[in-house]
Amino acid sequence: MAAKNAFYAQSGGVTAVLNASAAGVIETARKHKSKIGKVYAGRNGIIGALTEDLIDTGRESAAAIAALKTTPAGAFGSARYKLKSFEKDRSQYERLIEVFRAHDIGYFFYNGGNDSADTCLKVSQLSQTLGYPLVAVHVPKTVDNDLAVTDCCPGFGSVAKYVATSIREAGFDVASMSKTSTRVFVMEVMGRHAGWITAACGLAAEKQGDAPQILLFPEIQFDEEMFLARVREVVERDGYCAIAVSEGLRNREGKFLSETGLKDAFGHSQLGGSGEIIARLVKDRLKYKYHWALADYLQRAARHIASKVDVEQSYRLGAEAVKLAIAGRNAVMPVIERISNKPYRWRIGVAKLADVANKEKMMPRDFITEDGFHITAKCRAYISPLIQGEAPPPYRNGLPDYVKLRNASVPKRLPEFKV
Amino acid sequence: MAAKNAFYAQSGGVTAVLNASAAGVIETARKHKSKIGKVYAGRNGIIGALTEDLIDTGRESAAAIAALKTTPAGAFGSARYKLKSFEKDRSQYERLIEVFRAHDIGYFFYNGGNDSADTCLKVSQLSQTLGYPLVAVHVPKTVDNDLAVTDCCPGFGSVAKYVATSIREAGFDVASMSKTSTRVFVMEVMGRHAGWITAACGLAAEKQGDAPQILLFPEIQFDEEMFLARVREVVERDGYCAIAVSEGLRNREGKFLSETGLKDAFGHSQLGGSGEIIARLVKDRLKYKYHWALADYLQRAARHIASKVDVEQSYRLGAEAVKLAIAGRNAVMPVIERISNKPYRWRIGVAKLADVANKEKMMPRDFITEDGFHITAKCRAYISPLIQGEAPPPYRNGLPDYVKLRNASVPKRLPEFKV
Repeated sequence: MAAKNAFYAQSGGVTAVLNASAAGVIETARKHKSKIGKVYAGRNGIIGALTEDLIDTGRESAAAIAALKTTPAGAFGSARYKLKSFEKDRSQYERLIEVFRAHDIGYFFYNGGNDSADTCLKVSQLSQTLGYPLVAVHVPKTVDNDLAVTDCCPGFGSVAKYVATSIREAGFDVASMSKTSTRVFVMEVMGRHAGWITAACGLAAEKQGDAPQILLFPEIQFDEEMFLARVREVVERDGYCAIAVSEGLRNREGKFLSETGLKDAFGHSQLGGSGEIIARLVKDRLKYKYHWALADYLQRAARHIASKVDVEQSYRLGAEAVKLAIAGRNAVMPVIERISNKPYRWRIGVAKLADVANKEKMMPRDFITEDGFHITAKCRAYISPLIQGEAPPPYRNGLPDYVKLRNASVPKRLPEFKV
Repeated sequence: MAAKNAFYAQSGGVTAVLNASAAGVIETARKHKSKIGKVYAGRNGIIGALTEDLIDTGRESAAAIAALKTTPAGAFGSARYKLKSFEKDRSQYERLIEVFRAHDIGYFFYNGGNDSADTCLKVSQLSQTLGYPLVAVHVPKTVDNDLAVTDCCPGFGSVAKYVATSIREAGFDVASMSKTSTRVFVMEVMGRHAGWITAACGLAAEKQGDAPQILLFPEIQFDEEMFLARVREVVERDGYCAIAVSEGLRNREGKFLSETGLKDAFGHSQLGGSGEIIARLVKDRLKYKYHWALADYLQRAARHIASKVDVEQSYRLGAEAVKLAIAGRNAVMPVIERISNKPYRWRIGVAKLADVANKEKMMPRDFITEDGFHITAKCRAYISPLIQGEAPPPYRNGLPDYVKLRNASVPKRLPEFKV
């Protein structure tokens, strides 16, 4: 069989190590030129495929592709865009095939989370449904760590390292200030449905008195009185209290705090993120001076403090996806299988996309302490290996030297298509 | 003269490198045992002196003191506490002398910003006013970079490196997402009165299209319409816009935005920090999807990405303070003198405390572009040297391994004193 071209796209929220997977895909494809011709990337994800807006990664130097390993976010642009089902909008799938045929694309690599695994599954079925020969492989990615089958998700380890480091550092700060000033520090972190990132903050607390003393998980209904009692207890014991709170914290009715707010002293609804709400609650009810932080994109883009394990796994999963594709394995996703915790050892496995698509891996209840305010030893044993090792980027002029690719367009061959 | 003991205290908001100055003081004192006996640190700053709550740093190992160079915040506790003037509360000063005399303290090292320089100056005058022989030396420290005489302030370079790195990383993120999702990213940074930290964010933008495209300084009155026009222009040009905003942004009446808020679509006052207000304004008026971050303590505690230059200067200033004290130089502060920008060269100078106390160094107007939205080449040339070099802490279990000292108390010899 003659070499076919490959299409690669990034999907959904980006991470500190998503581009490491891209480097894994492209560098490995370059080593198998008898099987894979060009690697075209979708400009802004799957939208690039639909609009025939393809980037010729062959125009990038080996150094530029290697630099992707140390560059955060999505070098080709990502997209929050979910294909409708084949039954609801057949035309989108026909368009994909049309573009793939026009550019001799035989391999489809989709780098994303739950939703994109589902999209990849649908695309993988096109050989059967529309008679176009295509091998589709999904490359896992999500800071939320909520993909099924795989032991962990690329992107999570680096966010975990960032948030645990940040709350440790802020904890040292507030502990220094607590005698005359700030006593309570609140940091809001990502993870609307699953508390993996909140849990990662807990790694920073290795013994009593360490920050963070309290974690507020999306899995645990927020109980105002129990929370306030705990804050007071911690401040009286340690002199200060550092709290990590999930953006997805919910009240007793199961509603997001960020949507319902809390009443202030005058009975007015106070909106804002969960971090702000929790901080104000502490001030209103306990009168402690507080500070709060919202890491937002900083946490998932923080390539400067990425986990070495995470970078290695991300790259490897991209590389393995190419090997699977060359072997003709359609509708699969390479995954991380954990062999042991101490020492941490892992290997690559293979999951069927049907077992991954649209599933969500929640935190086990026994990863959270009985009182709901911290992580258990079991949780620590699971997350800790994922933040090991440093993989700093190169620096130039005192700042991380991240690459911006040329992203040269592949000439279009088809009429326009509106998405 | 027989060796006298020294008192060292940390004052005001802590930094990523304040403890490096402490290490400079303690290690240098340990090398001059014929002049300086013990180094006692105030537990929680000057409050420790008033309450005779002294820490015997001699009980810390050489390794523990060396580890201060890589540990953020204030290892002995800091304090936001300003002594009243000698005339208004003579008893506090008499108490200080009483404690110093009880513990044979002949050297006073005070590590802080403007306010503490003033306190240090008052203490330096005690030999004259109360007849107690004491040499008082101030060690500069402030992330705000607003101390007079010195070319720069320890702590600023590291915050600068952190905020510039963070907005660069978040800029890569939002650029990736902008086709289908977030278009505008806002990061609020510290610096209520001076825009040094806001300016530092600008270092990340080296050419057109780089983040951050807009900086909002406390020095420039906020003009809503001009700002919105600029955001729209940037989004249309670059596809996204990253904005760094000072917590101290002010409206045309000179009031803090964070205190006055802006009206929302229903005419209600929306409170919150300037970052949140700016983000909401962009959404309400331009309908762009936005994200915003509040780095808060994360920025000043981020020892993991401290500037090497900053760490070296901080240590050196602590060391030089001891040398000045031994030489009998009362009422002074070692400062950084810049010799050249390229290559960056600096040396230690000496300022009189009277020239430093209660003064505030503002950003020159020609450090800000004429339109008020970015930094000039002159500003870049000034700040850039201060963020050069990396000085990563040791890591353990995947996280920065920061030291917590034993902080053993010196037995009290005096009756209690209430502050």
